[in-house]
Amino acid sequence: MATTVYDPPALDPGTLRVTPLGGLGEVGRNMTVFEYAGRLLVVDCGVLFPEEHQPGVDLILPDFEPIKGRLDDIVAVVLTHGHEDHIGAVPYLLKLKPDIPLVGSGLTLALVEAKLKEHRIRPFTLTVKEGQTERFGPFELEFVAVNHSIPDALAVAIRTPAGTVLATGDFKMDQLPLDGRLTDLRAFARLGEEGVDLFLVDSTNADVPGFTPLERSIGPVLDQVIGKAPRRVIVASFSSHVHRVQQVLDAAYDHGRRVALLGRSMVRNMTIAEELGYLHVPEGVLIDYKKARDLPEDQIVYMSTGSQGEPMAVLSRMANNDHEIEPGPGDTVILASSLIPGNENAVYRVIDGLTKLGANVVHKGNAMVHVSGHAAAGELLYCYNILKPRNVLPVHGEHRHLMANARLAQDTGVPEDRTILGENGTVVDLKDGIARIVGQLDLGFVYVDGSTVGEITDADLKDRRILGEEGFISVIVVVDAATGRIITGPEIHARGFAEDDAVFEDVKPRIAAALTEAAKSGVRDNHALSQIVRRTIGRWVNTSLRRRPMIVPLVIEA
Amino acid sequence: MATTVYDPPALDPGTLRVTPLGGLGEVGRNMTVFEYAGRLLVVDCGVLFPEEHQPGVDLILPDFEPIKGRLDDIVAVVLTHGHEDHIGAVPYLLKLKPDIPLVGSGLTLALVEAKLKEHRIRPFTLTVKEGQTERFGPFELEFVAVNHSIPDALAVAIRTPAGTVLATGDFKMDQLPLDGRLTDLRAFARLGEEGVDLFLVDSTNADVPGFTPLERSIGPVLDQVIGKAPRRVIVASFSSHVHRVQQVLDAAYDHGRRVALLGRSMVRNMTIAEELGYLHVPEGVLIDYKKARDLPEDQIVYMSTGSQGEPMAVLSRMANNDHEIEPGPGDTVILASSLIPGNENAVYRVIDGLTKLGANVVHKGNAMVHVSGHAAAGELLYCYNILKPRNVLPVHGEHRHLMANARLAQDTGVPEDRTILGENGTVVDLKDGIARIVGQLDLGFVYVDGSTVGEITDADLKDRRILGEEGFISVIVVVDAATGRIITGPEIHARGFAEDDAVFEDVKPRIAAALTEAAKSGVRDNHALSQIVRRTIGRWVNTSLRRRPMIVPLVIEA
Repeated sequence: MATTVYDPPALDPGTLRVTPLGGLGEVGRNMTVFEYAGRLLVVDCGVLFPEEHQPGVDLILPDFEPIKGRLDDIVAVVLTHGHEDHIGAVPYLLKLKPDIPLVGSGLTLALVEAKLKEHRIRPFTLTVKEGQTERFGPFELEFVAVNHSIPDALAVAIRTPAGTVLATGDFKMDQLPLDGRLTDLRAFARLGEEGVDLFLVDSTNADVPGFTPLERSIGPVLDQVIGKAPRRVIVASFSSHVHRVQQVLDAAYDHGRRVALLGRSMVRNMTIAEELGYLHVPEGVLIDYKKARDLPEDQIVYMSTGSQGEPMAVLSRMANNDHEIEPGPGDTVILASSLIPGNENAVYRVIDGLTKLGANVVHKGNAMVHVSGHAAAGELLYCYNILKPRNVLPVHGEHRHLMANARLAQDTGVPEDRTILGENGTVVDLKDGIARIVGQLDLGFVYVDGSTVGEITDADLKDRRILGEEGFISVIVVVDAATGRIITGPEIHARGFAEDDAVFEDVKPRIAAALTEAAKSGVRDNHALSQIVRRTIGRWVNTSLRRRPMIVPLVIEA
Repeated sequence: MATTVYDPPALDPGTLRVTPLGGLGEVGRNMTVFEYAGRLLVVDCGVLFPEEHQPGVDLILPDFEPIKGRLDDIVAVVLTHGHEDHIGAVPYLLKLKPDIPLVGSGLTLALVEAKLKEHRIRPFTLTVKEGQTERFGPFELEFVAVNHSIPDALAVAIRTPAGTVLATGDFKMDQLPLDGRLTDLRAFARLGEEGVDLFLVDSTNADVPGFTPLERSIGPVLDQVIGKAPRRVIVASFSSHVHRVQQVLDAAYDHGRRVALLGRSMVRNMTIAEELGYLHVPEGVLIDYKKARDLPEDQIVYMSTGSQGEPMAVLSRMANNDHEIEPGPGDTVILASSLIPGNENAVYRVIDGLTKLGANVVHKGNAMVHVSGHAAAGELLYCYNILKPRNVLPVHGEHRHLMANARLAQDTGVPEDRTILGENGTVVDLKDGIARIVGQLDLGFVYVDGSTVGEITDADLKDRRILGEEGFISVIVVVDAATGRIITGPEIHARGFAEDDAVFEDVKPRIAAALTEAAKSGVRDNHALSQIVRRTIGRWVNTSLRRRPMIVPLVIEA
């Protein structure tokens, strides 16, 4: 669907402008810009991971276009938590202006700083805690504790003369969180009494009925599986899921096993989490991977990455018997993780490979070894009822999630015209307690591939899709510049096209004939001659083989 | 994992040999060959649909290699039911020998014949019914009714002097099937008492605990959704799911709506099903698509294909607003279908597109609008206990499914060494009541792409994956054959690579220098010169852009 693009009006004094640059209509690259009195506040700056129709792309960034000319106006970037879809694009923003201050909790900033170090950027940071209030230009921020699948997540209340906004970031409302840090509904209640004019709320699980189960409900399952495992145990999970790892460490400790961390990001993140006090390592339970091999097999747990079937990660390599740890009969593998849509085939290939090697594979399909990090519909209803927001802008999700969230808001009494269904680039102005859409920017996908940022276009991706599906045929003809006579060729080469090159012997005389004919008629233009080559071989391959590879004709003058 | 390949011994007289050519370790291309006294019986001949690591492939066939030289020995091909993964490769087998007789139920053969017509093949067929017994060479076959997600499915008992085999095909045990046609447990019991020496059993849902719900449990949901739908209703499902369509017709009829079938395969299959009496169309409920547009919106149901998010199918086009029927607010779309792994992103894109247009989308994620066609663990236990087979060969499934099924067999008392975990090409001999693995053939994937069969190799697919992820750079240099001097070039072109071609100005002089250097040292061999070009540009692109596109160097002599 084409969205109608139109410019917002100049921003009135006394009006707060809210523009999501990412995260609406997609799961990832969350980023929202708030503008008041000429100053900008950015909340989150994440990446999106590509889908199968975006082949070869490493990352997708929010389109920074609307703020590129206004980097000096940014008073701060607030990061609600340390997941890639909320912090992953920070290095690319700071490459434009390295001194934009970053604001976030201790763990969040530690993870951002580790990431920025790889990009050789040392940022300006301000560490904040729940309950803390800070002013940045015209924005007065209050940070509110929320829980999620990573510790130390914060919601942020943004007070301006135009009204108060509450942005949840990603959150859920685990009522018995492992670290005792609740989503602060007392603060939500207080903000609600004070009056929340606009509520930006996580929609990821808005279409999931009921309540997200407790993270700690996984503990007994891990305990039982690890307790009865006859040989080695390998647990795969997300490398930032401190509480999941905590539960694995605890269960291992209780059964006299030691834990070796595998995978660069797992080791890095857990080192940070332990240093900052988020991970509590039972005495002596961690062991270096190299030493773990000398332990008896029933005294070891490997904690690894690769739960999404990533081909280069430890777990996939184990499943392919391409890793030093060769799982076999009696070994137990636990995938303590979600299954992100699009990864199903890869994950099932891993499960199947491990099963074939004889391992017992425990995953969310056959045991309670994962719970979501996001509030389900039941939890969101609590939020709406406690906050009673005047206007709601569902964020973080595909359109169906945003819409489900809008419906929940309406069920609790928020009027339909006060629930705003937006897209990336939708410009929302808040004034006099009313939020309304005043513009729609034309934003694109910014692709990162290797060291290049924003060079790849959708046309390039279309070329890749054709090449990937059908391969290509290149035809080279060297012609005499003066006469158009063929000197060499046609030489025909194909890749990914599959037929033996001998198949082209048929069509070569036809191409030569077509070119000779053209030369006789006085055609000398290389582009025109290339088109003749393209048409001749294209028709032939289509009718004789019913295929549509990319045709790359090259007529060279010598 | 590399499987050890070894030839089976010559087949003893009095021994039955069973060789699955497809369907083990995968969901699709089911095909098993039975050999006795020099004659072959084939059960099923299906296709497998490619996964994302097999780009551009249309279909994957079983590897016919072991029977290619023995086509004259085939006494019959028995087709257990009319799904593509059991009949789809029949045209490719009959292209090798068109007069191999096909045996199956009325609906199965009608669907095969329609398919063969497109390939311009008129087969020899024998229609059989449950309860019927037929002899083909040394094989005495008894056909047994089973139910599945398509009507008229048959299991087949194969009696030979070496023992009796029961092959279920795909099946479940719906105890209140819409057509009253039960999986015939009385026949299973009788065969069990007689003695089943080898049981080939559907493993698709062996790892799903419990029982598959009744197909008719969907009826009330359809009835309720269609009954309260304010405007148009669009239902998508598989085009061969006669009973699903039946329930849609019935619900539409009950609410005074008429049904228009959309999509070529839907129209074709339902025409066949109605003609043969499998589909009972309530008086006047079907209406031509073109006339349907004139009906009031609350009197129409469109029944379409595209439930798996196939980009060219009606439903995807509707979601992209690229179809005459433009879904909008008040319209209801029901995806009355499974979600086949690998299709998740495509299906969610369709759901999201439709939601964005305002339609209410009902799918298995939010309503009981689909049940599986395969027996779950609970049902399989009934089978094992009624049959008490001496040997079990789980078929139809990934390795984890086969293994789960083997475990169920063992739970009912089949000894572990009598449950055979095989792969495609595993050769199993049955003699004296004992089945054992005697060989492992080396079978491959046979890819269909356009009109070519078996031309595409795994190396071609690897090329496609590289091309699809990274694109290519081609470098053409025309050199003087005698001196090696560069006449024209290097010309550099790239596709799917994304950078502006101007980026190559940097590297052209380096290539020219490297070639000139080589020419001076007397290198004249085109291949060696090409390698120099490849290395020079490869290194440059890797270090300067951190990319690894395919490099296609062409050194041409003129």
